[in-house]
Amino acid sequence: MTPAGPGRQMYALVERLYPLCRSITGDGVRATLDIVGEYLPLQIHEVPTGTQVLDWTVPQEWNIRDAYIADSTGRRVVDFAASSLHVLGYSVPVSATMPLAELRPHLYTLPDQPDLVPYRTSYYKPDWGFCLAQNTLDALPDGDYEVRIDSTLADGHLTYAEHVIPGQVPDEVIISCHVCHPSLANDNLAGIAVATYLARALAEQTPYYTYRFIYAPGTIGAITWLARNAERIEQVAHGLVLACAGDTGRLTYKQSRRGDAEIDQVMRHVLAASERPHEITEFTPYGYDERQYCSPGFNLGVGSLSRTPYAGYPEYHTSADNLDFVSPEAMADTLAACREAFTLLDRNRSYLNLSPYGEPQLGRRGLYDALGGRSDTKQAQMAMLWVLSLSDGDHSLLDVAERAGLPFDTVAAAADALRGAGLIKA
Amino acid sequence: MTPAGPGRQMYALVERLYPLCRSITGDGVRATLDIVGEYLPLQIHEVPTGTQVLDWTVPQEWNIRDAYIADSTGRRVVDFAASSLHVLGYSVPVSATMPLAELRPHLYTLPDQPDLVPYRTSYYKPDWGFCLAQNTLDALPDGDYEVRIDSTLADGHLTYAEHVIPGQVPDEVIISCHVCHPSLANDNLAGIAVATYLARALAEQTPYYTYRFIYAPGTIGAITWLARNAERIEQVAHGLVLACAGDTGRLTYKQSRRGDAEIDQVMRHVLAASERPHEITEFTPYGYDERQYCSPGFNLGVGSLSRTPYAGYPEYHTSADNLDFVSPEAMADTLAACREAFTLLDRNRSYLNLSPYGEPQLGRRGLYDALGGRSDTKQAQMAMLWVLSLSDGDHSLLDVAERAGLPFDTVAAAADALRGAGLIKA
Amino acid sequence: MTPAGPGRQMYALVERLYPLCRSITGDGVRATLDIVGEYLPLQIHEVPTGTQVLDWTVPQEWNIRDAYIADSTGRRVVDFAASSLHVLGYSVPVSATMPLAELRPHLYTLPDQPDLVPYRTSYYKPDWGFCLAQNTLDALPDGDYEVRIDSTLADGHLTYAEHVIPGQVPDEVIISCHVCHPSLANDNLAGIAVATYLARALAEQTPYYTYRFIYAPGTIGAITWLARNAERIEQVAHGLVLACAGDTGRLTYKQSRRGDAEIDQVMRHVLAASERPHEITEFTPYGYDERQYCSPGFNLGVGSLSRTPYAGYPEYHTSADNLDFVSPEAMADTLAACREAFTLLDRNRSYLNLSPYGEPQLGRRGLYDALGGRSDTKQAQMAMLWVLSLSDGDHSLLDVAERAGLPFDTVAAAADALRGAGLIKA
Repeated sequence: MTPAGPGRQMYALVERLYPLCRSITGDGVRATLDIVGEYLPLQIHEVPTGTQVLDWTVPQEWNIRDAYIADSTGRRVVDFAASSLHVLGYSVPVSATMPLAELRPHLYTLPDQPDLVPYRTSYYKPDWGFCLAQNTLDALPDGDYEVRIDSTLADGHLTYAEHVIPGQVPDEVIISCHVCHPSLANDNLAGIAVATYLARALAEQTPYYTYRFIYAPGTIGAITWLARNAERIEQVAHGLVLACAGDTGRLTYKQSRRGDAEIDQVMRHVLAASERPHEITEFTPYGYDERQYCSPGFNLGVGSLSRTPYAGYPEYHTSADNLDFVSPEAMADTLAACREAFTLLDRNRSYLNLSPYGEPQLGRRGLYDALGGRSDTKQAQMAMLWVLSLSDGDHSLLDVAERAGLPFDTVAAAADALRGAGLIKA
Repeated sequence: MTPAGPGRQMYALVERLYPLCRSITGDGVRATLDIVGEYLPLQIHEVPTGTQVLDWTVPQEWNIRDAYIADSTGRRVVDFAASSLHVLGYSVPVSATMPLAELRPHLYTLPDQPDLVPYRTSYYKPDWGFCLAQNTLDALPDGDYEVRIDSTLADGHLTYAEHVIPGQVPDEVIISCHVCHPSLANDNLAGIAVATYLARALAEQTPYYTYRFIYAPGTIGAITWLARNAERIEQVAHGLVLACAGDTGRLTYKQSRRGDAEIDQVMRHVLAASERPHEITEFTPYGYDERQYCSPGFNLGVGSLSRTPYAGYPEYHTSADNLDFVSPEAMADTLAACREAFTLLDRNRSYLNLSPYGEPQLGRRGLYDALGGRSDTKQAQMAMLWVLSLSDGDHSLLDVAERAGLPFDTVAAAADALRGAGLIKA
Repeated sequence: MTPAGPGRQMYALVERLYPLCRSITGDGVRATLDIVGEYLPLQIHEVPTGTQVLDWTVPQEWNIRDAYIADSTGRRVVDFAASSLHVLGYSVPVSATMPLAELRPHLYTLPDQPDLVPYRTSYYKPDWGFCLAQNTLDALPDGDYEVRIDSTLADGHLTYAEHVIPGQVPDEVIISCHVCHPSLANDNLAGIAVATYLARALAEQTPYYTYRFIYAPGTIGAITWLARNAERIEQVAHGLVLACAGDTGRLTYKQSRRGDAEIDQVMRHVLAASERPHEITEFTPYGYDERQYCSPGFNLGVGSLSRTPYAGYPEYHTSADNLDFVSPEAMADTLAACREAFTLLDRNRSYLNLSPYGEPQLGRRGLYDALGGRSDTKQAQMAMLWVLSLSDGDHSLLDVAERAGLPFDTVAAAADALRGAGLIKA
């Protein structure tokens, strides 16, 4: 499987998902999860409207069939059928004819990007509206317009999905991505695609950790998952939020609120060791669902991997975040970085030197060159000495690798040899 | 009250105090406190000679009426009436006629600054002497001189004063300045003036902390206060020593011995945020009465604010530290910095997020914009998210502001809003 | 005793030791310790073959009388008599005639340094061999060669020695050097010489710490010492491994595994304060016997002082590490640095201020100038104030010196004065 392979496959998945009108509830999410389910068995959860989840309440379910603004000739000048972005998310139904002046307060545009359609929602304040290009608006003559939003807001469910890859230990790594944005390719169809192919790759062999993939609507979905998994939280050892995973910018890792979580160290190490151009940023309480996982009550070791980060590109939350904005190569690169990180995380263990008084005699165990006096001691032998020196319960193998300036793989192999010889234990 | 207003008023107070001959005891201190008492009600303390105070003993009280050196014609060539600096502080009485050669060991000059009169004392070794300009000394012909110091050293009292502004909590902030230097304007009449006008400003509304202003002789006065307030020490939460507050140099904040006391963080922040040119220095066990407050047994969170610091200017402890050396604008600026610092300190609290599991739903509490999807989230909303994220008992609002890179006022306002909504508590 | 004096004396000692064929056991070590014993009374320890020492076993004793390769004319083309390096350390006896092709696998050369003879050993894998210059090898015609190594490998003893200088307290400083290398001047005859003259210098007066000098074979010797001194380990407060102490490169101090041990701070301070060009390096688990002393079970505060460090020079472990490679001046400089370090370490104590509330009145104890008002307070007075300020049990005198920016000697003298006045106690 070459990088280009999964890149093209992930891009094809993004293309399939792009036209769907997703929101924080409704059939768009279900259709999205149905498609992902073709790639990966998913456990679907439906949580009823009105369910209390932490400080929040699951809202009514929103579904939409059609929406448009038509001029006096009946021509649809703004049409939901052309793009799911055209309707204000969670718009209440409306069916009326009104002059442009009366319609204007319900129209959202981007005056500074007059060709683009913005993405706007009103989840918790009942409202209706349309999003359109400023140029489109400017071209509308005064006069009466027919306005119609054929939507329903009714008791129903919030939908999210999980996919679990059982590991050798019950300790979990959660990989979370949001599935609530309509026709926006980078935010977050690329994240969904990378998560999906990462799950497939991890399943190729039994990983050390149990990996849980969470596909959920932003904010309310993550909050719902947290509310329903109170007993599981203490098993969550590490986590990563995937978002904006497909643009051609460089990778950005946003550290967990802790800043010194193991996932933070691993991502910093992997991105630096790979010599990819990249950026490491501090935690902020804004962005994607790391906001929830890292809220002070949970304070999980969950970071966030993006390419160009949240709100960091002009196409963000506009119709320009389309299929041209993401690339197979970029998604393949994000996936590769994830695989490198979780491969390392999965091997990163702290050992205890069982022979800590003086050096154990490696030579009689076949772990050391018999010929003395040479100065070109091999990296593998240095790695063994470093592992022995730092295996005091306070240092992980990654700590050893960073302290020794040796590749992690060399250190992990040395640890394997030492463990095989009974000199260290986990 | 414009900055120029209090600047001129403080300068006028310095002018009134300048001629008085202060020392560590005596009527000069009393006269000084009488004048300050016109601006601020003071509680005067008189501590008898011989009182044991920590490792020290209150010395005899020194008073002086006249002192001069007269030549053979009776002309006073050095005259206490012209400047209180001319007599060695705590000089024992003397009345004699002697040749210049015999007089010389009792004469103090500054050979490198031949026009200036030095300031010298001999508190604890009985001695007498005169301070004069080197040029004056050089012009004295040989011959006999009449030497007279009409002073008394006798059992009496050490005098210091307090002014207390009751706060909402009994925890105290102490503001301390020394009142023992004779005719030196910057050291420390400017400090006395700034302290006095700071007290007046703080009294305009009930502050959070109780503020205690201490006007006391250097070293022995602070030691006396500490000895007599053993039970109060644990209530002293923060403190500031004010000295050299009126020269035109930039502000200098000397950190407490702790270095990480809250007053240190506050002063660093305020001086940096105000974009004043300034300097932050480490604690040293030399300088003003921070030496006593920060002695290892007390180790209080007390820093020191000066403009050009202790011994850092050529006019220091000379007759050139006169009314021309201080300016209304400089004192107004020092006062303004103090007010900014204590306004911030008074609002700087640590809160506990009462809804720490996930983000609380700010929208339904009217604390968050209803319209989703925009990237221009307001600073006020970011401040609320930061306060929620860091209100874990380990972070003050100033910690939040510094971590978030937001203005303290914005963060404090966010905390007020969140507290009003019942989401955080102190 | 000028630096040149001990330099020449140490060089003379190196010259005497140079020809001996040392190994990890055997008469070469004994002869070496006999010579050192002429300079310093040594306690010799003989540990029988087969003794279990930590994870190791004392090996058979190796002795060698003669070894050579002779050509068909009987000419010795490689001769142990010319240099102890020519035989592979711990070679088993051999007496045979064989063609060059058969001999080749037993010949060790340095192709990149064709004039030099390498130093090679095979302690734990029974083998035999010769070390020679590549040029010598290249000049050997094909044909039969007589090969003879007149060695014995038999049950015997491992030999090491100790020299103890009793101190005022039982807490020990160990100075360790390896004595197992044959004719290599810098590695480690210079270390032996510096250790020996350091011991002589320290004995001139009773030091504070008890100093224990350990002359032992590398690795197995240090391990043997550690195994036989389990009850003593907790008395080892500090230590230094001396190696490569005589080349003309700059001094290199390799920190202990702890990195913040007192010996680390002392060596860093002394090397910086002396303004010698020098290098401070982090601990690595490779090098000399700091590997054993700093193994995680012991984790002693033991650093290592060298000039050019382990394997850091092309002459390392070759015949070029000869008497020309070390100099009297370099050894004198290493010795001087050691003396400075241990003089400081010996005086470096943590005190407790017995008058910690306010400053004690130094003046009435004669510790402070009586004349007040001057700004040129003497360094000695500043040092007293700093010692009082930081004598809270958490700061050593070296901490004080570094924090105050004062010379250690000034600070130590201030502490002596304060202790004399009963103001601080150890």
